[in-house]
Amino acid sequence: MQIAMLQDKILPVEKLEPAYLDRGIYFGDGVYDVVRSYNGKIFALEEHLDRFANSLAAIEIMGVDIDRIRSRVERAFDAAGISNAKIYFHITRGSAPRSHNWDDNLEPNFFLTVTELADDTETKTKGIAVSTHPDWRWKRCDIKSLNLLANVLARADAAKKGCAEAILVDESGLITEGAGSAFFAIFGRILQTTPLTANILPSITRKFAIEAGKNIGLELIEKSLTPQQACCADELFIAVTTKDIVPVVKFDDKFIGDGKPGKYTKSLAQEFHSFTT
Amino acid sequence: MQIAMLQDKILPVEKLEPAYLDRGIYFGDGVYDVVRSYNGKIFALEEHLDRFANSLAAIEIMGVDIDRIRSRVERAFDAAGISNAKIYFHITRGSAPRSHNWDDNLEPNFFLTVTELADDTETKTKGIAVSTHPDWRWKRCDIKSLNLLANVLARADAAKKGCAEAILVDESGLITEGAGSAFFAIFGRILQTTPLTANILPSITRKFAIEAGKNIGLELIEKSLTPQQACCADELFIAVTTKDIVPVVKFDDKFIGDGKPGKYTKSLAQEFHSFTT
Repeated sequence: MQIAMLQDKILPVEKLEPAYLDRGIYFGDGVYDVVRSYNGKIFALEEHLDRFANSLAAIEIMGVDIDRIRSRVERAFDAAGISNAKIYFHITRGSAPRSHNWDDNLEPNFFLTVTELADDTETKTKGIAVSTHPDWRWKRCDIKSLNLLANVLARADAAKKGCAEAILVDESGLITEGAGSAFFAIFGRILQTTPLTANILPSITRKFAIEAGKNIGLELIEKSLTPQQACCADELFIAVTTKDIVPVVKFDDKFIGDGKPGKYTKSLAQEFHSFTT
Repeated sequence: MQIAMLQDKILPVEKLEPAYLDRGIYFGDGVYDVVRSYNGKIFALEEHLDRFANSLAAIEIMGVDIDRIRSRVERAFDAAGISNAKIYFHITRGSAPRSHNWDDNLEPNFFLTVTELADDTETKTKGIAVSTHPDWRWKRCDIKSLNLLANVLARADAAKKGCAEAILVDESGLITEGAGSAFFAIFGRILQTTPLTANILPSITRKFAIEAGKNIGLELIEKSLTPQQACCADELFIAVTTKDIVPVVKFDDKFIGDGKPGKYTKSLAQEFHSFTT
């Protein structure tokens, strides 16, 4: 008899819940996205759905109706009734006995949660410390996949150093992005960030941060930075859906500027917020 | 109310089964191993458990008692009563609401299946075709983690080309290993394979294949090959737990030798089988 075991409990394979046979857990064979709401309104849902569709296509999960995903996201958000919500959703290729090759007839599994965002006023007011970590991720970081162990380990390393985010550095010594955020530096009136041609996620918040930067008169340069260059920036910040713009005041134990959130970062964050209302 | 959604069904987050909150699915935050039995006897269990312990340590899943894992594997194998069985097991860091940072108090989730191995006589008699694919995997392939999407996509590409395995080629143009196997070439009486210093898995079957090669008088060279070099080999084979030694007779549309399994490969496979009885 083919059998399964969960902790110490033995059962026939046939009795396993589909959740245990999810290709998401066996292989990370799925993609996800995260949107948030501001005061009862979901921000940039279409951009996130577009990216989600691109991620699905990139790993050949076919036949997902994006209109249906949109209506699920909206229905769940309405049901939760949370004003400032984080909406996480993923689709995996489906549930089946473990085999690298997949059956095209698998039905994808959709999963979503709506949770309340914690107040992050203090984080934004004080800024955060970040530390560098080798970028161990795979070569397709343009796909927002469930293969996130490198990100988890980098973030854990940062946490041990008292830092809120890990800034990933690739083999050529260049910063790619944060373990869960886009990374920006400001030099004078120049806003600098990694180009999308590098192995990074096409971050939606990055896009709006760039737009906000332009609106406040910063000049954009898309060019990778080394940690040494980042240390010398006048200002640093990260951009992430759930927290939008977060000032970085310490980079690998070195204070940035006067160790307080910079003026352009503050102004850029304010401009960003105008997009969300 | 914090809510979850499974396909179209809405439920409170608190009602989710722990399987849906497994960090294995959110992040691939877990490690696995596979052992097999030959005629009612598990092969190389200690070697696999050692590697499993190393993988757990590498991603800082602490406090797992390997003796307990051994007894679970043995108990499940006995309960299944399958003579030629594949035993897959993984441990994830545990189930919790999604957050990159983990809580040290999480209880790891153990999952195992025992399934019957299909007869592979024909595959081994005829040999297989393989095709190359860029190695998109992360930089810690020494860890046998659940982040396997790169492997899945490479194998899918191979399948489209009518090939049974994808041979991964890194950015410097060197073969690392198969999507789910170690890769070997034979030139004259020289057995060549990627060194463990490359970004590959310390494969147990690789170790025994090397031992078998030495026993039949082959000289070992641990040095990475290019696809062009592999094409010119006298013989090629892959090594994988579930199938041990599988001759490769076609590499990227080019026949190897006379397009039939080579003599040293056959002899090495025979020697390998003597280890398993």
